[in-house]
Amino acid sequence: MDSINEVTLETVKKATSTLSGHVIRTPIQTCDTLDLLSGRRLFFKCENFQKSGSFKFRGACHALSRLVSANGTTPHRLQVVAGSTGNFACGLAMAAELFGVTAHVVMPNNSPECKRQTALSYGADLTLCEPTAQDIAQTVKQVQDVTGAVFISGGNNPDVISGHGTMGLELLRQVPNLDAVVMPVGTGGMLSGVSVAIKSICPEIRIYGAEPEVANDAAMSLSKGERCTFARFPQSIADGLNGNIGPVPWTYIQSYVDNIFTVSEDEIKNATRLVWEKMKLVVEPSGAVGVAAVLSDSFKAQAGGCRNVAVILSGGNVDLQVDKLSEFL
Amino acid sequence: MDSINEVTLETVKKATSTLSGHVIRTPIQTCDTLDLLSGRRLFFKCENFQKSGSFKFRGACHALSRLVSANGTTPHRLQVVAGSTGNFACGLAMAAELFGVTAHVVMPNNSPECKRQTALSYGADLTLCEPTAQDIAQTVKQVQDVTGAVFISGGNNPDVISGHGTMGLELLRQVPNLDAVVMPVGTGGMLSGVSVAIKSICPEIRIYGAEPEVANDAAMSLSKGERCTFARFPQSIADGLNGNIGPVPWTYIQSYVDNIFTVSEDEIKNATRLVWEKMKLVVEPSGAVGVAAVLSDSFKAQAGGCRNVAVILSGGNVDLQVDKLSEFL
Repeated sequence: MDSINEVTLETVKKATSTLSGHVIRTPIQTCDTLDLLSGRRLFFKCENFQKSGSFKFRGACHALSRLVSANGTTPHRLQVVAGSTGNFACGLAMAAELFGVTAHVVMPNNSPECKRQTALSYGADLTLCEPTAQDIAQTVKQVQDVTGAVFISGGNNPDVISGHGTMGLELLRQVPNLDAVVMPVGTGGMLSGVSVAIKSICPEIRIYGAEPEVANDAAMSLSKGERCTFARFPQSIADGLNGNIGPVPWTYIQSYVDNIFTVSEDEIKNATRLVWEKMKLVVEPSGAVGVAAVLSDSFKAQAGGCRNVAVILSGGNVDLQVDKLSEFL
Repeated sequence: MDSINEVTLETVKKATSTLSGHVIRTPIQTCDTLDLLSGRRLFFKCENFQKSGSFKFRGACHALSRLVSANGTTPHRLQVVAGSTGNFACGLAMAAELFGVTAHVVMPNNSPECKRQTALSYGADLTLCEPTAQDIAQTVKQVQDVTGAVFISGGNNPDVISGHGTMGLELLRQVPNLDAVVMPVGTGGMLSGVSVAIKSICPEIRIYGAEPEVANDAAMSLSKGERCTFARFPQSIADGLNGNIGPVPWTYIQSYVDNIFTVSEDEIKNATRLVWEKMKLVVEPSGAVGVAAVLSDSFKAQAGGCRNVAVILSGGNVDLQVDKLSEFL
């Protein structure tokens, strides 16, 4: 595979060009109530409107597009496999359907039903496993052994990260006079890609991650100066952020990210509800963690000078069953 | 009051200019899944993003702006009163706060809690009454007698209707090669205003109303050629459409509307859920009735030639309590 080994402004720019016509240039929405509550002007990047319901389609589509190009004209013979808490599986499944590639996806058995159904609806072959990093890796390996599928790491593949970085370039064009960007951190692909893109052009813009307190591997990593991981995934309501930060994103995060704010489960639930109620947007709890961060006391204390703040609403894949919604509504 | 007595393309154009800077020029969203299900290209006008959570702000703000202009420089002495199933009350309350006018609103006691709370949050004085046309009218009269407030009819005031009509002009600019526009019908203010605007410029564009079967006063009126009303409001889950079509809208609807499609409660619930799930938009059941219509068999049978169809998602004010959501999720 003719993969790029680094994520740079150039690889993100190339990804933008490759993805043109495939991804949605998601709109920016604003909300007077949330501006008032946060004490700043917020610009919400609506990746819940992205194809497959989350930003993950960007990276998956980019990686697959490059893989297909490298393999010439027989995409139907290609098979790919990925492990994912859910949204990367959905993104990869949709991109695979687009390119005529067979996708195998491995998801933890506690992932939301809607994410499993979405991956299946795009024709992916789904295998469930225990919600541990080890079991996901082992299951992916087993699928690879049986099928010969090419492994695409949702967390560490530079093509995936460059694809996610395209959001950063869009943000710079969409929001003038940006002071900071806040986004959720799971495996760190979005945070690393977007930070490379934005810091390369506007190093003065602050890049902030937002993470559940109970899944604070990225915050711990940044604080200790070395990558920390959980053996068994935490159980945050922000299910998409329960995975560990990957070694590749970590190198960029270490260089480019100004801070990572952690928020409680209650803060995440409250932020999710606010986005539904005030912005009329269906956002999943993982997608609202950036909102929880900008509403938090620690953000108010530490990001005082930031007037114009972009917040990435990373996805909207949430089980619409009443018993699931009762967790945050 | 220097009110306009007619709704014409000119009054709608003037309203557009008056409302500039006050209302949100709501975006158009598309959805591949709903295109597939409907068999056409759908363009959704997202009035759930409008200020106060529904299109009603347009008409309320326009009428109030004209009232304030006519009264010179003492808006704080002005008082207005309206009866509403909910969203017009919210729109009027927000517009009144904007202009420094005191708003009294009368709502049926079965209106959604969020609509009451929204009206109250903008400082409106709220009176609840029985859910009948007669009791709403009597209660409004009582409030008027006590306060001397100016009555603003959400259904019949031509300034309100011209304000709603601004959506039609926006649609013509936002969606090229439009074949039809489908929108919900409650009191008929939106349908009449939008149809006047669009038919005056592009008479070939078909204008369709969408109405719950159980609240089919507009459909009955169009079929019989005379305005029909319910004495006691029906109990559709599309609570905003339970009111009766007004005599002023009726005159325009009779002239300009090509058809009104009725949909069952199950069709409304299904459409609402689809919009939440596939479009990631919080839309209230009343706001999804147009979606239910374009997915219906009768629409497919009767609107065959319509390729590009705009659907107005009229509002997103829905109680986010689980017991309420369980009605359609």
